[in-house]
Amino acid sequence: MAKNTNIRISLPAVCFVWQIAMIILFGVFIRYDEESDTHWIEHRRKKNISTNLENDFYYRYPSFQDVHVMIFVGFGFLMTFLKRYSFGGVGFNFLIAAFGIQWALLMQGWFHHLDEHDWKIKIGVENLINADFCVASCLIAYGACLGKVSPVQLMVLTLFGVTLFAVEEYIILELLHAKDAGGSMVIHTFGAYYGLTISWVLYRPLLSQSKHLQGSVYHSDVFAMIGTLFLWMYWPSFNSAIADHGDGQHRAVINTYLALASSVLTTFAISSISQNNGKLDMVHIQNATLAGGVAMGTASEFMITPYGSLIVGFCSGIVSTFGYLFLTPFMEKTLKIQDTCGIHNLHAMPGVIGGIVGAITAASASESVYGQEGLINTFDFKDAVANRTVNIQGGYQAAALFVAIAFGLVGGALVGGILKLPIWGDPADVNCFDDDVYWEVIGDKIQIKPPLAWYKITLIDVQYVINIKLQRLLNF
Amino acid sequence: MAKNTNIRISLPAVCFVWQIAMIILFGVFIRYDEESDTHWIEHRRKKNISTNLENDFYYRYPSFQDVHVMIFVGFGFLMTFLKRYSFGGVGFNFLIAAFGIQWALLMQGWFHHLDEHDWKIKIGVENLINADFCVASCLIAYGACLGKVSPVQLMVLTLFGVTLFAVEEYIILELLHAKDAGGSMVIHTFGAYYGLTISWVLYRPLLSQSKHLQGSVYHSDVFAMIGTLFLWMYWPSFNSAIADHGDGQHRAVINTYLALASSVLTTFAISSISQNNGKLDMVHIQNATLAGGVAMGTASEFMITPYGSLIVGFCSGIVSTFGYLFLTPFMEKTLKIQDTCGIHNLHAMPGVIGGIVGAITAASASESVYGQEGLINTFDFKDAVANRTVNIQGGYQAAALFVAIAFGLVGGALVGGILKLPIWGDPADVNCFDDDVYWEVIGDKIQIKPPLAWYKITLIDVQYVINIKLQRLLNF
Amino acid sequence: MAKNTNIRISLPAVCFVWQIAMIILFGVFIRYDEESDTHWIEHRRKKNISTNLENDFYYRYPSFQDVHVMIFVGFGFLMTFLKRYSFGGVGFNFLIAAFGIQWALLMQGWFHHLDEHDWKIKIGVENLINADFCVASCLIAYGACLGKVSPVQLMVLTLFGVTLFAVEEYIILELLHAKDAGGSMVIHTFGAYYGLTISWVLYRPLLSQSKHLQGSVYHSDVFAMIGTLFLWMYWPSFNSAIADHGDGQHRAVINTYLALASSVLTTFAISSISQNNGKLDMVHIQNATLAGGVAMGTASEFMITPYGSLIVGFCSGIVSTFGYLFLTPFMEKTLKIQDTCGIHNLHAMPGVIGGIVGAITAASASESVYGQEGLINTFDFKDAVANRTVNIQGGYQAAALFVAIAFGLVGGALVGGILKLPIWGDPADVNCFDDDVYWEVIGDKIQIKPPLAWYKITLIDVQYVINIKLQRLLNF
Repeated sequence: MAKNTNIRISLPAVCFVWQIAMIILFGVFIRYDEESDTHWIEHRRKKNISTNLENDFYYRYPSFQDVHVMIFVGFGFLMTFLKRYSFGGVGFNFLIAAFGIQWALLMQGWFHHLDEHDWKIKIGVENLINADFCVASCLIAYGACLGKVSPVQLMVLTLFGVTLFAVEEYIILELLHAKDAGGSMVIHTFGAYYGLTISWVLYRPLLSQSKHLQGSVYHSDVFAMIGTLFLWMYWPSFNSAIADHGDGQHRAVINTYLALASSVLTTFAISSISQNNGKLDMVHIQNATLAGGVAMGTASEFMITPYGSLIVGFCSGIVSTFGYLFLTPFMEKTLKIQDTCGIHNLHAMPGVIGGIVGAITAASASESVYGQEGLINTFDFKDAVANRTVNIQGGYQAAALFVAIAFGLVGGALVGGILKLPIWGDPADVNCFDDDVYWEVIGDKIQIKPPLAWYKITLIDVQYVINIKLQRLLNF
Repeated sequence: MAKNTNIRISLPAVCFVWQIAMIILFGVFIRYDEESDTHWIEHRRKKNISTNLENDFYYRYPSFQDVHVMIFVGFGFLMTFLKRYSFGGVGFNFLIAAFGIQWALLMQGWFHHLDEHDWKIKIGVENLINADFCVASCLIAYGACLGKVSPVQLMVLTLFGVTLFAVEEYIILELLHAKDAGGSMVIHTFGAYYGLTISWVLYRPLLSQSKHLQGSVYHSDVFAMIGTLFLWMYWPSFNSAIADHGDGQHRAVINTYLALASSVLTTFAISSISQNNGKLDMVHIQNATLAGGVAMGTASEFMITPYGSLIVGFCSGIVSTFGYLFLTPFMEKTLKIQDTCGIHNLHAMPGVIGGIVGAITAASASESVYGQEGLINTFDFKDAVANRTVNIQGGYQAAALFVAIAFGLVGGALVGGILKLPIWGDPADVNCFDDDVYWEVIGDKIQIKPPLAWYKITLIDVQYVINIKLQRLLNF
Repeated sequence: MAKNTNIRISLPAVCFVWQIAMIILFGVFIRYDEESDTHWIEHRRKKNISTNLENDFYYRYPSFQDVHVMIFVGFGFLMTFLKRYSFGGVGFNFLIAAFGIQWALLMQGWFHHLDEHDWKIKIGVENLINADFCVASCLIAYGACLGKVSPVQLMVLTLFGVTLFAVEEYIILELLHAKDAGGSMVIHTFGAYYGLTISWVLYRPLLSQSKHLQGSVYHSDVFAMIGTLFLWMYWPSFNSAIADHGDGQHRAVINTYLALASSVLTTFAISSISQNNGKLDMVHIQNATLAGGVAMGTASEFMITPYGSLIVGFCSGIVSTFGYLFLTPFMEKTLKIQDTCGIHNLHAMPGVIGGIVGAITAASASESVYGQEGLINTFDFKDAVANRTVNIQGGYQAAALFVAIAFGLVGGALVGGILKLPIWGDPADVNCFDDDVYWEVIGDKIQIKPPLAWYKITLIDVQYVINIKLQRLLNF
């Protein structure tokens, strides 16, 4: 009856075998590209490139590092908010991201960068950014499952998530030729529906047995703010990291900066107005303030105008906070979807908003605003799509949104089915949100005998009992 | 008698109305500049710019992101040091900075960047940096009021603070043509006196009723070190972010790096020597170590020489630490200025030192040291001020310092008067430094009945009582 | 018998005198280089440099800031893992790094950058990076001594550490002409053996008296993860910061990124497999995940290939985790080396691996892989070493590794002898790992009378007693 959560065989096996597989596949397929190879100097001469600065490294490396921080510290610390799952939040995030970026380099390479002459994938800094992007979708999915899955399940979730992502990205960016620089659709919408569907398949009817651990304490909320702020501050880099050199990157930064600022104000407003006493809720501040960045993912490169960006942030902050207030409880009760981090509110809805905003903005683009060359550059209207009009582009953008949702739902259902197999060492309903299952937690944690196991007394709970006692003493 | 701290109407109203106003004003006034507009490619051709790298984005974006981190994580986490005001410290910092940067883009735009042809403000990455700078002055002012004001008051403080800043900055940089790349005067001196005067107007005679919350606990001090270190590490970016391309930015970084290193050593020295047992005080380490960066704000671009920078850091570290030891208690008792974060020691005094150092360094500049062109470039001696000598420049620098102080004092008095109105939902003296007033704090916090309200028993206090009991038990 | 840990005289004296010495020496020796001097504009014209972007500042500043974060937040927070030594971990790291970078600018300047015409050292951004690198070796050494030395001892350790480093670096890079962009040998191997030898000389036979404080609590482990992640994320910048412009920096980033990812997976694997219950250990995750970055330090610039980098990370993650499991206890018991942070596992062994990998990779370099020009550029085969072959280069690389080890061992023995003098205010064995010795720790800490001093009751311990009591109550 009690589940076996001992992962002493399964986790090392998965880590070792998959890492060795990575080494072999990298050996067969991955090479440096012409900008990171020692032949760069000859390449420069051949292409008549005047300076080392034209190496893409100098265009993109600062943005890459910001994105890298978002993936590991941003997502990682955002998930430390639970009172007894901070190790799992930041630690498993670390594990699956480190695996995912390797697998993403391969999967994205096969679909986008396979050299047809020598069948090699040539990588440079842009590939590293794209690998980080790809992994972000799996970390979003992790958010829905936080505290309820084993690290082995997370590795499986990431293996399939990256695979699905690469296919979906190929369809959206290459076949539909949709634009999505910051990944509202490709990353956020897909990742969120992927995670939500998995969580729906893995529904735990008795999760309330872990209710006493499904919440924050004072310090864990402050830790989570580290994640929130690094995500918030570096989101302009996220949305601009692979945008066009020059005005493309520049504009993406301005738009994202403004949308984020705007969603902070509406989040605080809705959070306060929703409580009788007007008090703010840290859950909203930690999450919904980021909605503007998600919603600006697709249109960040476009001439959406500064006030347009503010409007996008305004709306997405409101929608996201309302989500935390009403949708999350509704989904848990009625739809049987347990969404630990509320990714539906932070990634799914703002992601869909971002996709719609992108489609509308693309469809309403014009030469008078963009300039003739600007329009072609921004939407890459050349080669196969040289004759595409902005209206048709808008249609393809909308189609891309549906592709992202469909991949999330179908992929999540399939992977959820796999993860439901009783072989992955996931915790029992009564042991969720507890680092003690997969981590050595010593010193400030007391062990309870089996009969009382359902009533794990953490330090916090003991303190609570003592406090109540003392309160009574003082009040009588 | 008990104050009404319910901000359920006022905070959402302010956030919504002001954010909508921002959208409208941005719609009327704000546009992309030529470097972030899709017409950049045409602009490049027209101006014969050979590469996208000459887009100012690539000169300034890395510094911008560092400054951005200072504003949100640096200032935010520095204010988490109070044992029960970490949410308010980092959360309200987030709110007012997000509002302030929008308002700053408008105010600074009207004063500095209004295109006289179409009455639009054209923004690019340098505007984003300047908006962050502008907001920094309001966050400094927040430091003096930390724990004693409502978020609505902070929004008002920011609205007027940004407005005053834009006028003051216009006078100092445009009319007086003073140099202040890192804002010793414009940002730090102004912000500090603005906040101190507000705190003086809002004097709370019974603040000692909240004394048990006006201090740190072990973990909150470690959180504050996150803020300290990110401010310290990125200060070279702060002082160089809008310095001249090339040697200007390069030199500003070196000078700031050295001044900061020097003030760390003198801070540790004074902190240790001031206690009988030689023990160090975290308050000093968290704050006075940064004094070198503040004091190097004005002169960072100048040829102050590396050892000159060390001397500036040396002195400002000493002055700042002495401030915490003697001036803060004196100001609270005698001048009735309650300065929660000690901004007088970290920003006011080092800011004034920075202004004076800037004036002296400017006045003693010479062609033999700077070179003829270097002198003109560094001080922008062209157009209207083409014939200005370095001595006169020194005089104008000194005048600028007085303008900054005057704006702080007068502006603070006016805004303090407004904030004294009993309509803003500020806490009673007994409820200061307590997140429970404006935030949902659950789980590890017990609620006390009204008659005992003045004697809020936090977890910490309960622990303290228990500890004392056990100590006696063990000692007898 | 009880040691005098009052540093009220010694610490301020050291800080003041040494800082004043820095000012004087900087006054005599340190000047801006041609890229940070106002004469840059004339230098540009003379050298026919077309754009300000060619100022080295724009090549290296983003990497510099990342390295800076690693030094102060990375190393600093990694050392906050002890339950009651977080102030000392992050605070003393701050102090000695701030001193060390100044002294390093001088020492490295005298050895590498002394202008033979005017006997001045001309500094720019690359010098700042190198100073940070130099200090890293002393911070590594601090890791072995964490909690067992006084800040005065740390200052002495840093003074001599920087001096030894500069000589060792001169021998390895200039005389042997070995390559070591990320410092596997120069920084990590040297720093680790330096620290371990000091710790061996300062062996404390009764350290077990402080055993109750030599461990982490839940929150301190989360704080340490901040350090881990910032080190991990920015390590690509560390290894590429002073690599060659263009492909050199680009390739170093890719190699380091991959090695780090790989070592995360093997660390998780070994950590889990080593426990009967398969549970993960935060000590391993916090440290051994970084081994890939250390081991890639020397070869990061070389054409080691992406899969080669994965293999290096794979092995070093395994070796490092095994070190924590078996070597650290063995060294403490048998070799009498007390290594608080396990630097032997994180820096010494991976550093040696890095040196060996570098020697092998260099020796097996070929023109067919590197290209003729690429080979010359990568290994700087010009001037005095224009005729060196790759095989000989491999031999010199191996020799460099021995130089680094020798400097660590001999230097550590000498400096350890100096630090053993009973004048530095170090704590007694019973007072180790306790911030209360050098810091004002208030509020949540109770004071015990002398007879009970060996049994310091911290908050944690009190809670533990209470918890046990309550547990029994609930279990009966």
